[in-house]
Amino acid sequence: MFDWETEKAELLKKIEELMERKRYAQLREMLLPMEAADIALLMEELPEETMPLLFRLLPKELAAEVFVELDSDEQELLISGFSNTELKEVLDELYLDDTVDIVEEMPANVVKRILKHTDPDVRKSINEILKYPEDSAGSIMTTEFVDLKRDMTVEDAFKRIRRTGPDKETINVSYVIDEGRHLIGLVSIRTLLLAEEDDVIEDIMQTNFVSVSTLDDQELAARSLSKYGFLALPVVDTENRLVGIVTVDDAMDVLQEEVTEDIEKMAAITPSDKPYLKTGIVETFKARIPWLLLLMISATFTGQIISSFENALEAFAVLTAYIPMLMDTGGNCGSQASVTVIRGISLSEIEFSDLLRVIWKEIRVSVLCGVVLAAANFVKLILVDHLLFQNPAVTPLVAAVICLTLVCTVLCAKLVGCTLPMLAKKLGFDPAVMASPFITTIVDAISLLIYFQFAHMLLHIG
Amino acid sequence: MFDWETEKAELLKKIEELMERKRYAQLREMLLPMEAADIALLMEELPEETMPLLFRLLPKELAAEVFVELDSDEQELLISGFSNTELKEVLDELYLDDTVDIVEEMPANVVKRILKHTDPDVRKSINEILKYPEDSAGSIMTTEFVDLKRDMTVEDAFKRIRRTGPDKETINVSYVIDEGRHLIGLVSIRTLLLAEEDDVIEDIMQTNFVSVSTLDDQELAARSLSKYGFLALPVVDTENRLVGIVTVDDAMDVLQEEVTEDIEKMAAITPSDKPYLKTGIVETFKARIPWLLLLMISATFTGQIISSFENALEAFAVLTAYIPMLMDTGGNCGSQASVTVIRGISLSEIEFSDLLRVIWKEIRVSVLCGVVLAAANFVKLILVDHLLFQNPAVTPLVAAVICLTLVCTVLCAKLVGCTLPMLAKKLGFDPAVMASPFITTIVDAISLLIYFQFAHMLLHIG
Repeated sequence: MFDWETEKAELLKKIEELMERKRYAQLREMLLPMEAADIALLMEELPEETMPLLFRLLPKELAAEVFVELDSDEQELLISGFSNTELKEVLDELYLDDTVDIVEEMPANVVKRILKHTDPDVRKSINEILKYPEDSAGSIMTTEFVDLKRDMTVEDAFKRIRRTGPDKETINVSYVIDEGRHLIGLVSIRTLLLAEEDDVIEDIMQTNFVSVSTLDDQELAARSLSKYGFLALPVVDTENRLVGIVTVDDAMDVLQEEVTEDIEKMAAITPSDKPYLKTGIVETFKARIPWLLLLMISATFTGQIISSFENALEAFAVLTAYIPMLMDTGGNCGSQASVTVIRGISLSEIEFSDLLRVIWKEIRVSVLCGVVLAAANFVKLILVDHLLFQNPAVTPLVAAVICLTLVCTVLCAKLVGCTLPMLAKKLGFDPAVMASPFITTIVDAISLLIYFQFAHMLLHIG
Repeated sequence: MFDWETEKAELLKKIEELMERKRYAQLREMLLPMEAADIALLMEELPEETMPLLFRLLPKELAAEVFVELDSDEQELLISGFSNTELKEVLDELYLDDTVDIVEEMPANVVKRILKHTDPDVRKSINEILKYPEDSAGSIMTTEFVDLKRDMTVEDAFKRIRRTGPDKETINVSYVIDEGRHLIGLVSIRTLLLAEEDDVIEDIMQTNFVSVSTLDDQELAARSLSKYGFLALPVVDTENRLVGIVTVDDAMDVLQEEVTEDIEKMAAITPSDKPYLKTGIVETFKARIPWLLLLMISATFTGQIISSFENALEAFAVLTAYIPMLMDTGGNCGSQASVTVIRGISLSEIEFSDLLRVIWKEIRVSVLCGVVLAAANFVKLILVDHLLFQNPAVTPLVAAVICLTLVCTVLCAKLVGCTLPMLAKKLGFDPAVMASPFITTIVDAISLLIYFQFAHMLLHIG
């Protein structure tokens, strides 16, 4: 394996050196055998002014592949430097769905220039795809697939694939449509190769297939591809007419993006689709501050609870010292449960109908956890705090208050942690928002109320 | 799109009804058009005793596909009920890498029975793959690929693909090897189809390709596939001899698993590869309790800090009420930074050499966040607590202590949050462990120290 991380620095140095010495032929030789994705990564690290020069060294086809892999900022920079002929050359080499992706990211004046230099029928298709809502299956599909008629022979099919194949995103699966362009079957290149030349498509095509609608969520399309292990998934309109396909490489990108979004939501950040180092300070600030403010305000309620038990805390000052431990443990227990359930929901392993099973499971786990934590804590309180450090305030009764609170807090935390994401999902909200930060804030308040309740009962205060 | 979640309940009812009325032919008709992955999901929901019967209704090929999709518990149950002939039939239909997956999950006696009923050369390959370490590229590869020789013509190649293709996991890419089985090139089915019949493979094959070694991490193989948009990736041994390929469907599964593991680690849970509802109580307990204990013990240090400032808190009891808000806000800020950086590392967007850029970015973001949070809090303290609720203890000086602490805590939290995962990665630990729970525990202590420092300076206590 080409060890990328360590080789990159060396490659960058070598490129800059060759550029400086104007050894362009040598530079071209060096870039030719590399993968487009790697060349793009290198170009992004080089000084901006060298990019157009480097780009022009590449043969047309490779240049287009590299172009697709670049970030939208770099694409814009290149386009603004392109002559019209160069722009047209790059656009001619691109697959339709890649052109759409690029158009979606560009400012209006660049979009106009791109559309002006694409072929009229490509322009029509771009405009078509652009109409689909963001994050829909329609918005990530490509319209460049091989379609066959049911009465073709295998020989006809191969002729068609040979003729139209070079422009298609995939030829691994061909789609069989009727006169009204309705999807009636699909046939893989493997089936075609293993069939006889005079077999009729209708007899060898697969008629049980999964498809998505243009308006379905892109995540649904990607998950179906992944679940069934397909290489491409047909996309149909509301009348079951075939309009495009989603390919496995795009599905993988969608799944990655969705996971990043989920993880960001779990950490109370508004998701962004830009890489961290490319996001501006103000953008990052805006993604984080609303949640911090909201959570800060919620946390002041916890403070109110402490204030209202001020007298109790003054009488038994020792109780204050254990507040962070109780709150943190509650928060950790809650986020363990909520994160597990959120991930289960997004992998479709857990549905709302499982609510009672989930609750019953969490109750049993939390009793086990609670008892072990309380026991460990009791030993620590008596052995370390009471006997070793001779702290007279840590009486067995105080230790009992702390340990009983611990057991009840763990139970409540796990219950809140597992039910809130499922309820959120049921009510149509994103369960990922119900992760650690929100659970922690709620559990903090609960743990304090339990704490003071036990203090009141056992120590007769408050 | 087949709306799975809502239709499942209905399908289950219908299956149970047909089973009861012994309408097996009708049941078979109903199952035939479905995808194997869906049939497996249905079987897992049905009572255990109906599974073997349902399984026997399926045609051999579909039965094998369903078998692969089942969980290992169900697979074991089925195997134990199979006659030797049935077992051999299922095994004959499986792809090699699926058989290996199954063998890896089964207890020793079942493994023995499986190996006894596979063909000798398949058995040899299984034993070969089983030797590779868990989570290595070798352990997920399949040895069923199409290999070609460099001097073959395109016609020869198609003959070979037609002859050996039915047993191969993919025919979309063929691999060209020399006499010593060294990988020298690859050729896609598209290239073959678009070439002339008498073209020689050597002239049309692609000689720049990416490969992984058998001992490379499976995540590296999966990420390369995803990065370059490949359908399969060749796996070579230390002498560059081709031993297998990793296909895109397996790569997608690996990426899903790795993400779930990362998310679990971020929530302080030991990762498990079983779905939540299939994991036993004790197993779930064992995955969670070590982290809870560790974090609980760390949190007692925070308690020690509070204890050591007991006198200060007694003099200014009002300060206690703001401890949860300060600790929570610090924790949230820290986890925002750490989770963003952890995800950036796992997507290779952030490397250790970016450390200073990351720190500089977080400093600027945290100053913005800190100032806004402190301002909001100051307004709330003065308007609500001081003027509205007439709390005499909340003086402007107390408010100043709280707000200054907030600014400094946010700064420290973001710095700790962004540096710890990067240091962990540099030192060879898993950065995902440095997420919310650990960051929170560390930031709690820091925020209290800052709090009491400001209280000491401005209120002259402690």
